[in-house]
Amino acid sequence: MNFESYIRNVPDFPVQGIQFKDITTLLKEPEVFSTAVDHLYAPFRSHDISKIVGIESRGFIFGAAMAYKLNIGFVPVRKPGKLPAETLSEEYLLEYGKDSVEIHLDAVRRTDRVLIVDDLLATGGTASATCRLVERLGGKIVGLSFLIELTDLKGREKLKEYEIQSLIRYKI
Amino acid sequence: MNFESYIRNVPDFPVQGIQFKDITTLLKEPEVFSTAVDHLYAPFRSHDISKIVGIESRGFIFGAAMAYKLNIGFVPVRKPGKLPAETLSEEYLLEYGKDSVEIHLDAVRRTDRVLIVDDLLATGGTASATCRLVERLGGKIVGLSFLIELTDLKGREKLKEYEIQSLIRYKI
Repeated sequence: MNFESYIRNVPDFPVQGIQFKDITTLLKEPEVFSTAVDHLYAPFRSHDISKIVGIESRGFIFGAAMAYKLNIGFVPVRKPGKLPAETLSEEYLLEYGKDSVEIHLDAVRRTDRVLIVDDLLATGGTASATCRLVERLGGKIVGLSFLIELTDLKGREKLKEYEIQSLIRYKI
Repeated sequence: MNFESYIRNVPDFPVQGIQFKDITTLLKEPEVFSTAVDHLYAPFRSHDISKIVGIESRGFIFGAAMAYKLNIGFVPVRKPGKLPAETLSEEYLLEYGKDSVEIHLDAVRRTDRVLIVDDLLATGGTASATCRLVERLGGKIVGLSFLIELTDLKGREKLKEYEIQSLIRYKI
């Protein structure tokens, strides 16, 4: 399936000069959405995954559908202050300044084999911070799966030790 | 299944005096999460649903899994400024001030039969704003489905004309 043809390019969003990749045009097409979900877990299916970690908030959409399909638990990684119980936090650098992501302390156990899911791999800052969160909790990362990868931003270089899949790649 | 036993009560989050209902303890249990998803769409399954509308961001988790299972499209309703293409916006009142939610103009068509999903029905402000968005686009709302309902906040009174389901009810 040509997933790319269902992605809408929105110029100058959220700021001038950015070509935003809008996935809502893919999500609303039933066969396309479900096929994308199936492709996102397919290479990792034999890896005995026990948890899907989805990154806020578009990662929730794909991650929750995968967790449902595979009948495994779903864990949200969220922006600061959103998770109500005890959390771990990891910072990552932005072009100007920094941000962080959080996970609940009880979200991942030492026996867990985790697949991390998000819609977009750009610079890899959020994804690598998420890997650190999972590993600090003792989880084993079996891989990371993304709908879209912006290859020129070299996110893969921050994630060299992991198996990574993306379904659509753009040079930007 | 006793869904309530998988919800964690977090006192004084996000502010003093609030008993926050944490659903992450339910999401991470495979059978509980998938059974909750199945219960959320069950009463509406015969209603010929063509789109699931999930409300940011915990509504994405249940809504996306339901859309995947039913093989229908998923539409995110988001906080202001998050959706990149042309949107409609609806305001709702908060205890102090107001907020709004948005939907893409092309997200729902006049022929669509829509099930709206969120994790929580509290005062009903977000849910009723979401109903207005769907109806302004010409969609028919077949119902609203929530994991949790805080009955004392009387959200149902704002949504009298619709079929509503909640899986867990708390008096607060």
